[in-house]
Amino acid sequence: MTITLDQLNASDCAGFVAAVGDIFEHGPWVAERAHAARPFATVAALHAAMMQTVQAAPRDAQLKFLRGHPELGGKVARAGAMTDDSKAEQGALGLDRLSDEEFARFERLNAAYALKFGFPFIIGVRRHTRDSILARFERRTQNDIETELAAALSEIGHITRLRLVAKVDGPGPPKTTGELSTHVLDTLHGVPAAGLYVELFEIGASAHSCLAAAMTNAEGRAELLADAPLRIGTYELQFHVGAHYAARGAACAIPPYLDVVPVRFAIAEPEGHYHVPLVMTPWSHTTYRGGG
Amino acid sequence: MTITLDQLNASDCAGFVAAVGDIFEHGPWVAERAHAARPFATVAALHAAMMQTVQAAPRDAQLKFLRGHPELGGKVARAGAMTDDSKAEQGALGLDRLSDEEFARFERLNAAYALKFGFPFIIGVRRHTRDSILARFERRTQNDIETELAAALSEIGHITRLRLVAKVDGPGPPKTTGELSTHVLDTLHGVPAAGLYVELFEIGASAHSCLAAAMTNAEGRAELLADAPLRIGTYELQFHVGAHYAARGAACAIPPYLDVVPVRFAIAEPEGHYHVPLVMTPWSHTTYRGGG
Amino acid sequence: MTITLDQLNASDCAGFVAAVGDIFEHGPWVAERAHAARPFATVAALHAAMMQTVQAAPRDAQLKFLRGHPELGGKVARAGAMTDDSKAEQGALGLDRLSDEEFARFERLNAAYALKFGFPFIIGVRRHTRDSILARFERRTQNDIETELAAALSEIGHITRLRLVAKVDGPGPPKTTGELSTHVLDTLHGVPAAGLYVELFEIGASAHSCLAAAMTNAEGRAELLADAPLRIGTYELQFHVGAHYAARGAACAIPPYLDVVPVRFAIAEPEGHYHVPLVMTPWSHTTYRGGG
Amino acid sequence: MTITLDQLNASDCAGFVAAVGDIFEHGPWVAERAHAARPFATVAALHAAMMQTVQAAPRDAQLKFLRGHPELGGKVARAGAMTDDSKAEQGALGLDRLSDEEFARFERLNAAYALKFGFPFIIGVRRHTRDSILARFERRTQNDIETELAAALSEIGHITRLRLVAKVDGPGPPKTTGELSTHVLDTLHGVPAAGLYVELFEIGASAHSCLAAAMTNAEGRAELLADAPLRIGTYELQFHVGAHYAARGAACAIPPYLDVVPVRFAIAEPEGHYHVPLVMTPWSHTTYRGGG
Repeated sequence: MTITLDQLNASDCAGFVAAVGDIFEHGPWVAERAHAARPFATVAALHAAMMQTVQAAPRDAQLKFLRGHPELGGKVARAGAMTDDSKAEQGALGLDRLSDEEFARFERLNAAYALKFGFPFIIGVRRHTRDSILARFERRTQNDIETELAAALSEIGHITRLRLVAKVDGPGPPKTTGELSTHVLDTLHGVPAAGLYVELFEIGASAHSCLAAAMTNAEGRAELLADAPLRIGTYELQFHVGAHYAARGAACAIPPYLDVVPVRFAIAEPEGHYHVPLVMTPWSHTTYRGGG
Repeated sequence: MTITLDQLNASDCAGFVAAVGDIFEHGPWVAERAHAARPFATVAALHAAMMQTVQAAPRDAQLKFLRGHPELGGKVARAGAMTDDSKAEQGALGLDRLSDEEFARFERLNAAYALKFGFPFIIGVRRHTRDSILARFERRTQNDIETELAAALSEIGHITRLRLVAKVDGPGPPKTTGELSTHVLDTLHGVPAAGLYVELFEIGASAHSCLAAAMTNAEGRAELLADAPLRIGTYELQFHVGAHYAARGAACAIPPYLDVVPVRFAIAEPEGHYHVPLVMTPWSHTTYRGGG
Repeated sequence: MTITLDQLNASDCAGFVAAVGDIFEHGPWVAERAHAARPFATVAALHAAMMQTVQAAPRDAQLKFLRGHPELGGKVARAGAMTDDSKAEQGALGLDRLSDEEFARFERLNAAYALKFGFPFIIGVRRHTRDSILARFERRTQNDIETELAAALSEIGHITRLRLVAKVDGPGPPKTTGELSTHVLDTLHGVPAAGLYVELFEIGASAHSCLAAAMTNAEGRAELLADAPLRIGTYELQFHVGAHYAARGAACAIPPYLDVVPVRFAIAEPEGHYHVPLVMTPWSHTTYRGGG
Repeated sequence: MTITLDQLNASDCAGFVAAVGDIFEHGPWVAERAHAARPFATVAALHAAMMQTVQAAPRDAQLKFLRGHPELGGKVARAGAMTDDSKAEQGALGLDRLSDEEFARFERLNAAYALKFGFPFIIGVRRHTRDSILARFERRTQNDIETELAAALSEIGHITRLRLVAKVDGPGPPKTTGELSTHVLDTLHGVPAAGLYVELFEIGASAHSCLAAAMTNAEGRAELLADAPLRIGTYELQFHVGAHYAARGAACAIPPYLDVVPVRFAIAEPEGHYHVPLVMTPWSHTTYRGGG
């Protein structure tokens, strides 16, 4: 159920809070105070006003608000006391179906973090792979309280931006999605490499999993993950260069010097454009970060 | 126990055969006939003369000679009826310690091959990884008899070249060893990348195993496998680019766009020079086959 | 004065010839015969039909038709007996304003060519630089008569395609224009190079002349010669890399290792897309033919 | 006439000054004082000791010493009052054969510089092209006196290093020569490009002059300027890629997309190793600063 920005701008306070009050987890006061700043020209402006409300709140209110969030992969998550949005977000990475060992690791991190900071670890899970969540969790537990409070509020910004875009239709939505594309150039023949098979793997700490596969189009281009969010993490594109040249009769060694060409890279900004081209011959290749 | 080429050139036929008669498996007649072609100016010339003897022999003698070779990974190998050279060569790849399943696969291929050609599958195992032996075995079983006879004699050439070089000291040995080297250029700073960590993996069908690791020297160069033979197969160099730039304070994203950079390639000629350079920045890299 | 394809399809023969009869130089019979093949679904189909008429004509008619063309840069050109289209095409390259020496060179080539083939040298000048015309003239004079007749008719195709597109409005025009573009990637910073100055030179045998200049846009892209036809010839893009990095404070040597980076390439198909990217750092660059 | 370091170490003061006193222009006191620091383990140590003497001298002595140098390309140069070393150095760039216009430009710069600093402009001409001398002259005239005094003494170091190496034989000479090399890799075929023709041009402000030409050897390598000093300046290597591929039957367009490939770069440190490789196909190329 979405609502339009026009409808929100025309709402009284109760209607406004009813519509977007749960964007901020157990924090309807954020919507309540932001109501005064209407009308909003864009969805991004609405989000900025709500975040400004949180940033401007007294430390006590901020801490109380942060404490209203569920533990990540923890007991509360298992017990089901999350808002529906939190459930959906944590479920996508399997954080609600942890093995006993993983559960124990999250429990330890949750305990250490809560002991140090007095609020649960908050992270926009839709922007992360399971590995990057663990890496951030371990690093952020080393922060001092000021740094971590800022980090937690920054994550609140990421989480609520996504929720707001899902709930409110209107002009000027904040940027919440990125792009992963490739372009293969065949410099043996001086043309784009059409019909070349590419696979995308997530390079996890414990396993490599294939996320997507594509054939380059007539211009040598392919888009990967067009229907899924980009997540912070390590990836590998595998370009099937050997098969491509074999099908075009390019003479080469047995086995060919290049067969499957891996290009490994990390996504750090899920809202960015990651363009990962390959300029290739049977004996060489070049890649660089395009897009950006 | 080696012998010099001068000593061989001065030997009578019995001494010549005693010294190099078992270079050709159960084929002392090869040495016997080659004896007449003395003196040999180089070890390579001696090898060429012996191979010429085999090539010029009647088909019957060739087939009988091929039949004198052990099955690869088969019953004979287990029973220990191989020459010491054969044992050492097959042992290095673990072909004398096959699992039951692998043993069964080799048995089936051995049976199919022997049925079709009437002699055992012969291959210079020291030039191969286990995967490339299986790939060749399967492909060569598809050959017609003429093609396969030529392929088998070509492998005899590879096998005996290595044995001869190990046994005879003298000028002009035939080329039996290759080279695998890398060179890392840092085009962020316009200098060679010194002290960069590189690992070499064999990319097997069922597993990736680390064969070697090195740090680049002050010129950005490293040699891999300097003390081991190159083998036909698929490899991956993993360049630790992220750690290199982090240590030099190059600003980059978290996680860095490039961290471990894999370069996957195949060795097809174990006697060649495989020079696999990496020209890199934190956002790009280029590789090509150098050497050659 | 243009005419629509619909109007042409509806014309009687006299009207049709009046409209497009002079597309083929002094050859109204081509239009006359093509009239029978109406209606044409596309302008390209009309052109193909007219060319088919020429190809199918008897050798005598073809030769007579070719003889109706003016000499290139020759006496006839000076005397002004060309159709207006021929004048405009030859004028753009300055072929009607030749120096005495150049005029003499064309005279010699014209004489040798006419003596050998019995018709004047025909070439689609709008697809050429002055240098490429001379190179073709010299090479084609070496042809045998069959090869050269085919070459001359192929040039008639190029010339009349351009004339037809200029005169007839309608769907499906044949491709007569190409594209020259660049894209600059800064792999020191991992971003497109915006605001980088690029110049385009024609690399003539006797001089280098600047044809165009551009700044790359926010995506690092620029289009050159957007309002002029591409011509067969040799070109050089000069990328002002040193100034770009100096303005961004990238530390480098004095003078900088790379300052103006030239990329020299040839255009062989004026109807193609020549995409000439530069992937650069202060110490390296890569280019390749994109587009195509 | 050279002398050995051993002989110098064994000399009395008069002999020492007689041997190396004129290394520092009209400044025998430098040798006189450095004599006390004998013995010198290396020629570099001797040079360092002499420079240390100059650096440690009182400002008055330094200025007097600098004033003892000839004007660059100025009246004194024409009148022939220079030491032989100065004459040879200035003569190599034609600074003793200036046109009237150039002479006037140097005169103006000399006058402005002398007026500001009270000593003539000093530069190690053997490390420079004529263009880089003019560029430095104009830039250094903008310096404040402290910066310029340091710059002048630094040039004295360059000048005397070269003179000392020419006069004294011995271990550990200071580095006075650089290297310019190239390496061409053909990634169409996966091999070094042997027999490829390369020319080296100096890219002067007013003209491009060919300094050297070479064919790449069997490894694809060539050394340029092996017998001449490197000089600070702008250069262009021109690789004859089109002819190379045409001779090897690589199919390509007419004219070929790449024919002569220019790579333009600057030398900033004449004592450095400038390795300028080209990794190429008929449709692409990559270069980077190697060596260093």
